[in-house]
Amino acid sequence: MTGQHNAASLEIKNNKPNVPFLLFALIFFIFMGVAFTPWVNHGVAESMATLTGGNSAVSANTQTIFDILQYSRSIHVLAMLLLGFGFLMCFVRGHGFSSITATLIVVSVSIPLYMLLKSFMGESSVLSIETFLFAEFCAASLLITIGAPLGRLKMDQFLLLAILFVPVYLFNEWLVLESGNFAGFLDTGGSVVIHAFGAYFGLGVIAGTYKKFKDGSRCENDATSNQFCLLGSLILWVFWPSFTSAIVAPDRVVLTAINTVFALCGATVATYIFTKLIRGHINIEDIANAALAGGVAIGSTCAMGNPGLSLLIGIAAGILSTCGFSIIAPKVEKLIKGTDTCGVHNLHGMPGLLGGLSAIIITGNAGMQLLGIVTTVVVAFVGGKIAGIIISLFKQKTALYSDADEFGD
Amino acid sequence: MTGQHNAASLEIKNNKPNVPFLLFALIFFIFMGVAFTPWVNHGVAESMATLTGGNSAVSANTQTIFDILQYSRSIHVLAMLLLGFGFLMCFVRGHGFSSITATLIVVSVSIPLYMLLKSFMGESSVLSIETFLFAEFCAASLLITIGAPLGRLKMDQFLLLAILFVPVYLFNEWLVLESGNFAGFLDTGGSVVIHAFGAYFGLGVIAGTYKKFKDGSRCENDATSNQFCLLGSLILWVFWPSFTSAIVAPDRVVLTAINTVFALCGATVATYIFTKLIRGHINIEDIANAALAGGVAIGSTCAMGNPGLSLLIGIAAGILSTCGFSIIAPKVEKLIKGTDTCGVHNLHGMPGLLGGLSAIIITGNAGMQLLGIVTTVVVAFVGGKIAGIIISLFKQKTALYSDADEFGD
Amino acid sequence: MTGQHNAASLEIKNNKPNVPFLLFALIFFIFMGVAFTPWVNHGVAESMATLTGGNSAVSANTQTIFDILQYSRSIHVLAMLLLGFGFLMCFVRGHGFSSITATLIVVSVSIPLYMLLKSFMGESSVLSIETFLFAEFCAASLLITIGAPLGRLKMDQFLLLAILFVPVYLFNEWLVLESGNFAGFLDTGGSVVIHAFGAYFGLGVIAGTYKKFKDGSRCENDATSNQFCLLGSLILWVFWPSFTSAIVAPDRVVLTAINTVFALCGATVATYIFTKLIRGHINIEDIANAALAGGVAIGSTCAMGNPGLSLLIGIAAGILSTCGFSIIAPKVEKLIKGTDTCGVHNLHGMPGLLGGLSAIIITGNAGMQLLGIVTTVVVAFVGGKIAGIIISLFKQKTALYSDADEFGD
Repeated sequence: MTGQHNAASLEIKNNKPNVPFLLFALIFFIFMGVAFTPWVNHGVAESMATLTGGNSAVSANTQTIFDILQYSRSIHVLAMLLLGFGFLMCFVRGHGFSSITATLIVVSVSIPLYMLLKSFMGESSVLSIETFLFAEFCAASLLITIGAPLGRLKMDQFLLLAILFVPVYLFNEWLVLESGNFAGFLDTGGSVVIHAFGAYFGLGVIAGTYKKFKDGSRCENDATSNQFCLLGSLILWVFWPSFTSAIVAPDRVVLTAINTVFALCGATVATYIFTKLIRGHINIEDIANAALAGGVAIGSTCAMGNPGLSLLIGIAAGILSTCGFSIIAPKVEKLIKGTDTCGVHNLHGMPGLLGGLSAIIITGNAGMQLLGIVTTVVVAFVGGKIAGIIISLFKQKTALYSDADEFGD
Repeated sequence: MTGQHNAASLEIKNNKPNVPFLLFALIFFIFMGVAFTPWVNHGVAESMATLTGGNSAVSANTQTIFDILQYSRSIHVLAMLLLGFGFLMCFVRGHGFSSITATLIVVSVSIPLYMLLKSFMGESSVLSIETFLFAEFCAASLLITIGAPLGRLKMDQFLLLAILFVPVYLFNEWLVLESGNFAGFLDTGGSVVIHAFGAYFGLGVIAGTYKKFKDGSRCENDATSNQFCLLGSLILWVFWPSFTSAIVAPDRVVLTAINTVFALCGATVATYIFTKLIRGHINIEDIANAALAGGVAIGSTCAMGNPGLSLLIGIAAGILSTCGFSIIAPKVEKLIKGTDTCGVHNLHGMPGLLGGLSAIIITGNAGMQLLGIVTTVVVAFVGGKIAGIIISLFKQKTALYSDADEFGD
Repeated sequence: MTGQHNAASLEIKNNKPNVPFLLFALIFFIFMGVAFTPWVNHGVAESMATLTGGNSAVSANTQTIFDILQYSRSIHVLAMLLLGFGFLMCFVRGHGFSSITATLIVVSVSIPLYMLLKSFMGESSVLSIETFLFAEFCAASLLITIGAPLGRLKMDQFLLLAILFVPVYLFNEWLVLESGNFAGFLDTGGSVVIHAFGAYFGLGVIAGTYKKFKDGSRCENDATSNQFCLLGSLILWVFWPSFTSAIVAPDRVVLTAINTVFALCGATVATYIFTKLIRGHINIEDIANAALAGGVAIGSTCAMGNPGLSLLIGIAAGILSTCGFSIIAPKVEKLIKGTDTCGVHNLHGMPGLLGGLSAIIITGNAGMQLLGIVTTVVVAFVGGKIAGIIISLFKQKTALYSDADEFGD
């Protein structure tokens, strides 16, 4: 591989694979496969029967059409997960292989695990495009989480983190959106339950690991790593309308998409203006990240707002996120005593809260909106902290912010 | 950032942000947001009412389906705008951050501005997917324009250029396609009103700025910057069928897509053959650009032609564009006394005219086709020249073809 | 261009373009254009008439909708062809321009040529989205083929290879899927007729060229070339569900997509586990390639299996492919006396056979499944060997695994 890895090359030799854990992972995945077959899983068997049974002609046709239309959006979301988040996390120089591999692994664990647990929870249509989209949302939230400790965890730890994350995410999703205890809480595109949840879970992981893990070397970037990061950022921008409109009613898709694009436009221009006003020049990491804050913040109101309001929410989110990266971040990192590598608190945390709060304009129910937000933040942070303590049982990665210790020539 | 920026690092310190302009941009965008809310904008209010009112069951369902199908294509076009044009313009070495940031800014300004002006013009369905697609076409044309002076304008100037471009584009679109004065003019996929318009507006900008702006240093590229450029080029290739079929009747989508792919195939092979015949070897910039000329030229006839004709138009466009890059470009640059950085005249200008002319085979109305072409070229060039003179009021960028003067470490 | 090309710069001057071949290619393509116009091609004329004739209202509407839904998937497949395969083949350092140009050329030759030959074979709906998708499958198989001799063929040879490949592919497709001789053979997503066919055709090309072509210098990669390769890999991963579901019945699209994602998830995790167990560290080429083996292997059963079975097939394919890259490949290369540059046998060959065999679980017809597999492998290898002997008539590329001899500054 490349010269930048030489410094840490000695350490590679001491890095034996953790065979028991790898075998556990293999058995876990084979078990998931078995647990998903209709022969042992009643929910899957029923869902398969519905799929292949066939309903009355006309309505079945229309339902099939809407399903395939949703399928298109699910592929756009998949592009956001692997290409978008994956390359966004490639801004760390000499850490691109780790960022992409971690992305692949946590997506590959969380999507089937989410759907399996859903089938255990009695979900009747577990093989539907809707359940698949919810599984993708879970993967998105998890990808936000791993951005926080990125560069300081081994691949085995990312795999374990994925297994620990999914049940906590499912619990919060059930509690806030399905249990009926938070009726009136609005969060269609997941500003709170996806973005803020992922960000505060990530901060929890940092808080749970800092006692055992030192953060010695620095996270660096260069022109090429930043260019790949911009690629990821633009992919997220482009497909974001399909993320927010994924599960809205069909006749709301176009309005949701336009609202989302307007929020992204507002955040992009606001980011440009405030990166220059605050720093005196353009910071490319502000551009790559804060421009997306409009998409995060519009999540709650995407299907109910209007384009004017969306543009204004986007502007506010872009300003907040740029201030986050340039001014607020150092204070937060002091508080949690660790580095938020990708700045997920600035991109997904605060703009997610802003999105959740902005929904009060639509619902008029400030109490319920606040309750949903606070509950999500608490569940996420506590869950993340416990997960952090558990993954600290592994030894620390030897070459921080580098592919050197895990990838061979 | 990188070593290649060091040479110009001293200049950075003299580069204070233009605070009054940035505040103007902020207020402009906040105003756009306010102007788009249904509370102050009658057109938006009416359009919102239509969207959420609900029509009679069956036809509403079918219309919703066709809208979502168009939405899918609008996302493909968005991928072309940000990822396609954005990375295509990254071929300039050490200028990738500027190319991507400029792309983000002009798209974020032009899409909402186009839709706002449309609502002022009395467009009844301003929040429709159709209007959104037309706004994307405007952004595409603008992205072509900024390819001409790329590397010689500051980010503030790109933002201002976007604000100046949209009304001129809208005027030409109205004049040629909607006013009724050019009945019989065929340009479904925008060979003339999108591609040629953008290219000649760009040449106008060069002609309007050359008196005040020196073009000292040279535009360079390397293997990595060209690789990112190829990425942009291939993204444009892949999603081009959704660009040409975006607004055709549903039962014409498949034929339009096949015609477009055939034109791209023809241009790709012709480009390969002629880059070797003319230069004696393969030039990667010819491949990255001229291969797309088939998509440009098929715009006018995409929905009415047949695959055989499309393949032949593609071959002709590939040959013309390759000759443009290798032989014609130096002469044009002498004429307009400036550098066409991305060669937009070779990729979008001449192939756009070829596309417009080829429509005579279908319509048989040479006079009207010529009139539409000449009108568009004149409006674009004059509009571009005036815009160029206005943006010359800013000071010149200090480090040409480089991120150095605008991006901090 | 870059420093890494200097070593071979002297050779460039001796590399005159093969003018007679280029003129042949031009005339061939112009002939294809003419042969495709409805004025000389009866099949195209009929297909155009059907397209523009219009049927009875309701059913035509629904058919149009399903056609446009398939069109969306055809664009996803196009993204796999150009962006996916194209960038996956960019892992060779200093060979990125050649990989992308070869990708563009073989796609641009094979899609129209496949459709033209189909129209000669009496296909009644040659301008349908279905025929276009089959043409894309042919291009995918051809892209697999060129991965085998990648870096050792000139661009002219890739162009000729494409012309030679298409008729053989069409013959095998007709024989195994349409002739009726293999009734009961299941291969919906093309594990056998697309993936294995392409791989064994590629091995045949190597076997057909090794006598005349020396394989001196080594194929190398670096961090940036591997990063572009990962980009291609992730694009293939993301859009794979649209590949397998491209031609299934509408009410099978969602199940097919979920099965495909599960197979990819299984292969990804299995690849991670086995690259570490076998090599002691993570090998990024295993990740970029073997993670996709699940998509290859699920092809045969994608529309009929269940997610549990798909996850297990994916795990098996990931293990097989990783063993292929690390253990089996050297033995195969000894056997065919040449280098399989991209390891297409490990990614598409063996997992394709695994996919074909796994269909026995569904069909219960081992004999027919085996017969279809063996036939395809024999037709592919023999066809590839003959094609290899023919393209050996050209002189060998002078700078192996390098852009140096074909691309100018």
